[in-house]
Amino acid sequence: MTTQSATQSAKRQLTPVSFANVRFDDRFWAPRQETNRAETIPHMYQMLVDTGRIGAFDLNFEREVPSPIVEIFGDSDPAKWLEAASYSLITHPDPELAALVDQVADKIIGAQQPDGYLNTHFTAIQPEMRWKNLRDWHEMYCAGHLMEAAVAHHQATGDPKLLNALARYADHIDREFGPKPGQKRGYAGHPEIELALVRLYEETGERRYLELCKYMVEERGQSNPHYFDVEAAARGEDPRKFWARTYEYCQAHAPIRGQDKVVGHAVRSMYLMAGVADLAHEYDDPTLLETCEALWHNLVHQRMYLTGGIGPSRDNEGFTFDYDLPDESAYAETCAAIALIMWNHRLLQVSGDGKYADIIEQTLYNGFISGVALDGKHFFYVNPLASFGDHHRTPWFLCPCCPPNLSRILASLGNYLYSTSEGNLWVHQYAQNEATVTVDGQPVALRVLSDYPWDGRVKLTLTPQEASEFALRLRIPGWCEQWSLKVNGRPVEGAGAKKGYVTISRTWQPGDTVTLDLEMPVQPVYAHPAVRQLQGRLAIMRGPVIYCMEGVDNGNIILDRLALDPDAVPGFKVEHRDDLLGGVTVLHGQASVIDDEGWDDTTLYRRDTPSPRKTTEVTAIPYAFWDNREPGEMRVWLRMD
Amino acid sequence: MTTQSATQSAKRQLTPVSFANVRFDDRFWAPRQETNRAETIPHMYQMLVDTGRIGAFDLNFEREVPSPIVEIFGDSDPAKWLEAASYSLITHPDPELAALVDQVADKIIGAQQPDGYLNTHFTAIQPEMRWKNLRDWHEMYCAGHLMEAAVAHHQATGDPKLLNALARYADHIDREFGPKPGQKRGYAGHPEIELALVRLYEETGERRYLELCKYMVEERGQSNPHYFDVEAAARGEDPRKFWARTYEYCQAHAPIRGQDKVVGHAVRSMYLMAGVADLAHEYDDPTLLETCEALWHNLVHQRMYLTGGIGPSRDNEGFTFDYDLPDESAYAETCAAIALIMWNHRLLQVSGDGKYADIIEQTLYNGFISGVALDGKHFFYVNPLASFGDHHRTPWFLCPCCPPNLSRILASLGNYLYSTSEGNLWVHQYAQNEATVTVDGQPVALRVLSDYPWDGRVKLTLTPQEASEFALRLRIPGWCEQWSLKVNGRPVEGAGAKKGYVTISRTWQPGDTVTLDLEMPVQPVYAHPAVRQLQGRLAIMRGPVIYCMEGVDNGNIILDRLALDPDAVPGFKVEHRDDLLGGVTVLHGQASVIDDEGWDDTTLYRRDTPSPRKTTEVTAIPYAFWDNREPGEMRVWLRMD
Repeated sequence: MTTQSATQSAKRQLTPVSFANVRFDDRFWAPRQETNRAETIPHMYQMLVDTGRIGAFDLNFEREVPSPIVEIFGDSDPAKWLEAASYSLITHPDPELAALVDQVADKIIGAQQPDGYLNTHFTAIQPEMRWKNLRDWHEMYCAGHLMEAAVAHHQATGDPKLLNALARYADHIDREFGPKPGQKRGYAGHPEIELALVRLYEETGERRYLELCKYMVEERGQSNPHYFDVEAAARGEDPRKFWARTYEYCQAHAPIRGQDKVVGHAVRSMYLMAGVADLAHEYDDPTLLETCEALWHNLVHQRMYLTGGIGPSRDNEGFTFDYDLPDESAYAETCAAIALIMWNHRLLQVSGDGKYADIIEQTLYNGFISGVALDGKHFFYVNPLASFGDHHRTPWFLCPCCPPNLSRILASLGNYLYSTSEGNLWVHQYAQNEATVTVDGQPVALRVLSDYPWDGRVKLTLTPQEASEFALRLRIPGWCEQWSLKVNGRPVEGAGAKKGYVTISRTWQPGDTVTLDLEMPVQPVYAHPAVRQLQGRLAIMRGPVIYCMEGVDNGNIILDRLALDPDAVPGFKVEHRDDLLGGVTVLHGQASVIDDEGWDDTTLYRRDTPSPRKTTEVTAIPYAFWDNREPGEMRVWLRMD
Repeated sequence: MTTQSATQSAKRQLTPVSFANVRFDDRFWAPRQETNRAETIPHMYQMLVDTGRIGAFDLNFEREVPSPIVEIFGDSDPAKWLEAASYSLITHPDPELAALVDQVADKIIGAQQPDGYLNTHFTAIQPEMRWKNLRDWHEMYCAGHLMEAAVAHHQATGDPKLLNALARYADHIDREFGPKPGQKRGYAGHPEIELALVRLYEETGERRYLELCKYMVEERGQSNPHYFDVEAAARGEDPRKFWARTYEYCQAHAPIRGQDKVVGHAVRSMYLMAGVADLAHEYDDPTLLETCEALWHNLVHQRMYLTGGIGPSRDNEGFTFDYDLPDESAYAETCAAIALIMWNHRLLQVSGDGKYADIIEQTLYNGFISGVALDGKHFFYVNPLASFGDHHRTPWFLCPCCPPNLSRILASLGNYLYSTSEGNLWVHQYAQNEATVTVDGQPVALRVLSDYPWDGRVKLTLTPQEASEFALRLRIPGWCEQWSLKVNGRPVEGAGAKKGYVTISRTWQPGDTVTLDLEMPVQPVYAHPAVRQLQGRLAIMRGPVIYCMEGVDNGNIILDRLALDPDAVPGFKVEHRDDLLGGVTVLHGQASVIDDEGWDDTTLYRRDTPSPRKTTEVTAIPYAFWDNREPGEMRVWLRMD
């Protein structure tokens, strides 16, 4: 197999290795997964119970009408919890959790109507409004998350009951919506069901679900008249008075093919594009892949934060315009980072191009894991790159989409490490772990030893059941400029990376070792001159980790009083602190600081005399770990001298 | 007379000279006043007609209920228009405008109810809701502006009909509200009526209006239970669900005495404080003056933009916390700058302290006059200190409070130049003008020749009717570090400024001349180290004028790619351009610019190599004149090297 260019085929060349075959035992992810299992999943369950989202499936709750939208779409949160809990059961059997999962599955099934419909609000509260507002009311979004939960539940338990229920719901939706006479030509205002239908198809083999997904993607944004206008008029509303103003918000402003800008609500955009990538593969449709590539280019090269956060604006929870990347007011919703990972995971399997794995890595270590506190019980919905001290994680949200989303990814994190293809074993991400993969039908045990991301040395031991020939493809991260490779202790000379992977083709003997040394200097990072908010500033990264300054480490001063000499940054001292933040590598160096000598509270501005500067010691911590100590300022992009 | 400290007396020591006695013929204000008369006043009238705000006084309009709040308070806009038009008639008689003013006055009078009540919405649309929501519905705010209009109309025409009508309305309000049994203990959610009642008292001599103002100020923020809670409950609403969240927004969170922070909605705060300053004088109440001084200190030293703009936040149209002064997202409503001028004008008369005149000057030349385009027909509601190119003046607003407010100040601008006190003539602001003042009963003709603010030389010729002895007090602006003074061409040695004024006491002969030379270098300005948004930045001022860079003069690049050397700023070349923006003094100099060499649209961030810098020529224009040419970026606070 050779990595093919996307225009030749839109089929997936790679098959990801399931997280079920991967066990982390590193210092970075393993503790997070354990906290997720032991703290986050129980905490979330309690929150879901306390806020009535589990009980809602009993269909005997009360609610005002009109209801806050966040209450209408409450079914999606137990669904994501069930998905996370199911994944956790796969890697960590737990009879008590299994019993709870079974109970929640039964509750969900119990809420299903005779015709297959399954939505608590539009059964118990407003049955007359069923399917009347796809634009705003999230029925299909909830359906999608329930389908994903059902797939996970089936994979975890082998019990088909929830899967069968959601298949009946999908059948119902398939009857209601579509291009045939008598069907509504609708689709979701908040995409998600598209990728879920593909998962349901993969799990059940029922091709109608795939066809339904294809219909939903292709119908989207077709106008004349626009479906959302039609249904608004049917509700007696003026479609021009759409509160979000444009259908870009709903990813329904234009047909999918031919788009070249990521627009509107970031999570909706990314979920949709994940579904589009699925369709491109399933139908081997290069036109859909072209849209993916065009939007990816725009997103990654003009609209993405350094942390992997996306969507700068609170107004639309989404995108604005090219190079608009404010730091303090960044929205960068945790769910958007997650959906970005999901989309790139799919594109990686199509192309085997390391640029997608780079985005996954950049997001995982920064704008994704920033979403949860070290205690596993406090969450960011919004992940700004600077704070003046008022932004903190909280135990729950009125709209609690992010916590269970984060939890399901953490519980299935092993998905992102490996793929196989004919004659190839791909290693995308590095973390200490044990795994079993199958290459050309042959089981291969993998043992990875590493202190990644704190250290760039990665040692793999491969143990095929018997000696076998295949190519090992190791990703060379985009941030890495110097690296070396050894096989069984002997340097591999002249190996170059292509599309982000270095390839070692040989007959592997059980116990063969490969050592990859990724040099991990402290690096200053600069933003494109078109990013108006980041000029005269630098960020600091080491390996895949983006650093920040936090007030607590730096005298709680206004952090913009600091300025760094870019030439000094590579010389910052690297120190691993086991005692800090569960164990992190911090950076120490010098900065200049604007002194407040001569200023008092009777002078706000002064002429002629700039503030004097002094030299001071500064400490940077990994961005994702901020706000785990006393409240204060935080800043990723630092002024430079 | 000596300038007394505020704690000794809260009475006004100074009496302002009316604009009726001042005629501008300078290059800065005279053209703005002419545009205001010839363009703005007719334009606004047409807009008021087109939006139904004049016709509303016929009481036969229709409107949805509940109505948008901006429609409910529509009476205030014709009121401010009438005030502006009346002032214009005083300095520039115009029979056609006089006829229109008379017609509008009659329309207003025609809407008055038999019991004196005068509000179009709560007469024609919701009479049953009269006085039911002082918190939100702006009835008293509208009443206040109508009272101010009536005072202006009486002063302009001598016709008492509108003044009498508004006196009847004030009588009505005085019957409805107050501490007596059977009265409602209410007061306005949007202050304005307080200062208007004082003006009505001054014009009519009816002391009940002053007493009513005193009641309204002192009742404000008293709780147990809070009046706004009581009236909300009476409407069947939960007072805890107040949309603005806190009564700080309405300046009703606490009793007025003892406050020490400016909070909430900026315009409401400043209008209230203007009324408080009036009361301090009228009742010689030092406790009210102390509140003024405490809030002034907080506002000017912790919460004011360099332009005189106030209120950083769009959320509450108002204040946030100390040293929070974002530039691009600054709200800085034009009305807030106007109300700031009004308050400082009152405090100046009490104390004769130049610090208040400094704030008036700083605001007039920057954040006030920025509110209107050179054509007089486009307005800023919001006056940010930086824009990425999306902020532009518009002909009108859904809530058009700012245009007529600006217009009435422009039409009466002469108010801010002079005051008299026993044995003293005070010159607060410099602009070429002719004026007649009365010092100790003796008329004095004043002729001021100057090209202020473009040049710091001011020549005054004083012509008392006969030789007379008094002290001439000339303000030395806070921005001025070097100045010299001559009387009849002979240097005055050893004259020092006290509290911002230099005093020349002598017997003045008709035709005596005083020449004040205020040195006006180009000055870099720096913000307090606690202002996190402005560190590593400087602004440029020359005299009272704050400068900015605008894209159109600087290659339309991202302006934050520029950085200035603070030491180079004083050497910037000063050029007066008659051909530009109606005639402005611009500044030219050099800056470094971040080059985009090596960057393309496939790289958003790069490691290790900062962008190279080049030297470039830059041009700065007065801030208030930006957005009068092609759209683009603007920035007051520039990065410095």
